[in-house]
Amino acid sequence: MADKAAMLNARSVLVTGSNRGIGLAIIRQLVESSNSPEWIFATCREPEGPRAQELRNLAAKHQGVKIIQLEVTEPCSVQAAAARVTEHLQGAGLNLLINNAGIVKPSTLESETPENMSEVYKNNVIGPMVVSQAFLPLLRKASKESPQKGMSCSKAAIVNVSSKGGSITNPIFFHVGHFINYRCSKAALNMLTRCQSLALAEDKILSVALYPGWVQTDMGNTIGQPPLTADASVKKILNTLGHLSEKNNGTFVNWEGETVAW
Amino acid sequence: MADKAAMLNARSVLVTGSNRGIGLAIIRQLVESSNSPEWIFATCREPEGPRAQELRNLAAKHQGVKIIQLEVTEPCSVQAAAARVTEHLQGAGLNLLINNAGIVKPSTLESETPENMSEVYKNNVIGPMVVSQAFLPLLRKASKESPQKGMSCSKAAIVNVSSKGGSITNPIFFHVGHFINYRCSKAALNMLTRCQSLALAEDKILSVALYPGWVQTDMGNTIGQPPLTADASVKKILNTLGHLSEKNNGTFVNWEGETVAW
Repeated sequence: MADKAAMLNARSVLVTGSNRGIGLAIIRQLVESSNSPEWIFATCREPEGPRAQELRNLAAKHQGVKIIQLEVTEPCSVQAAAARVTEHLQGAGLNLLINNAGIVKPSTLESETPENMSEVYKNNVIGPMVVSQAFLPLLRKASKESPQKGMSCSKAAIVNVSSKGGSITNPIFFHVGHFINYRCSKAALNMLTRCQSLALAEDKILSVALYPGWVQTDMGNTIGQPPLTADASVKKILNTLGHLSEKNNGTFVNWEGETVAW
Repeated sequence: MADKAAMLNARSVLVTGSNRGIGLAIIRQLVESSNSPEWIFATCREPEGPRAQELRNLAAKHQGVKIIQLEVTEPCSVQAAAARVTEHLQGAGLNLLINNAGIVKPSTLESETPENMSEVYKNNVIGPMVVSQAFLPLLRKASKESPQKGMSCSKAAIVNVSSKGGSITNPIFFHVGHFINYRCSKAALNMLTRCQSLALAEDKILSVALYPGWVQTDMGNTIGQPPLTADASVKKILNTLGHLSEKNNGTFVNWEGETVAW
């Protein structure tokens, strides 16, 4: 799966929640790749905050990385981010949108609260929906102007970072934690992905739900000792993204490109 | 599938959203059945309102039908309803909880709003979750006091009314309407059902997601001409509920008892 021809070859990529964990590892590996995108939009809630220091260090060294403020639960912030990205792109489109930002609240079936459920849904489902809507004109532009036939992440794509914890067929780690807020949100995000894949197929915009694996991140560490480092996961993820085509539109794949059951 | 032995034989049943459509048809057929439950709790938002007239007429004629105010999005209302039901039951448990209340808002992928998404999620997912939590002590009591082995809707069960529009594998009617708010909520409700089935198995409480079919109701009529009347659907549904066992725990079945893909 490492043939050059199928490498991710996007001119512009945007990643939400890019100051930590998987998001940050994606930015770092994109910067270091042999065919680094011209524009790497690294968005996060608080670009000036202490938790974005690593990202700021990275951006200071690499001109292609543009840090953009984006709070997925605030439509105004999303609109402002889309305007800034449009400016940077100077008429070009956006090839790849990675909706990576997400949250989870500890809970059990009996202790789960309406407040947690609503907040997690806003972050993990409504957020990616609003972000996708805001960047759709740029994705359409990238698709239209691409000489490639078919679909790919190098042309125009929405990648929604989901979880196998959101697989209804096999909701893993249930014995470790119920996390109703999170599981319900990821099942709904998978449905959003499916709807995007159906509605945007005519625009040749690829939509996939991606399970990054059980990764050593602040989130992954809460339920035990994950086997994968963020870097190891992202290395496989970028390889997988390079190989996705219209055959994968509307599917749920893991970091290695294997299909996950809904 | 019409053998007497497998008929639904619950002493107590509660149905949310029971003033119209499928909910009302369930109440009516339970009242008319040869082994009518002793307690039929018919809940709705506005028991005194003009849209509950038919339900009030039914309750006036049948002592077993108790109309209870319950607004699924208001935890206080849910708690008050659980207290009233507990009083009526005089120490008995609740055998069957049917989370039937649900809403939908017209939308497309591009016109969908955060407000619609939140409101529909509150009604269709958080509502059933909170209602199930509130009635769990009564369901546990029913399960514990039942002489039956295994699981059944006659013993102790949660039935969440879902939709094939919420099947991620095959989200039907997408060409007719995107209804992102509704589809995402039903996929999440399916996940909630799955989580309930895993967490409540040790209590021998059965949890299933039920697709009632495309039915001639206010909701069903919005997308065309449904082939099923509410009465025809509910006749099959009650037959199906009578046949469910532990084999069906955590599954998604249609009105005829056939498995639906997640």
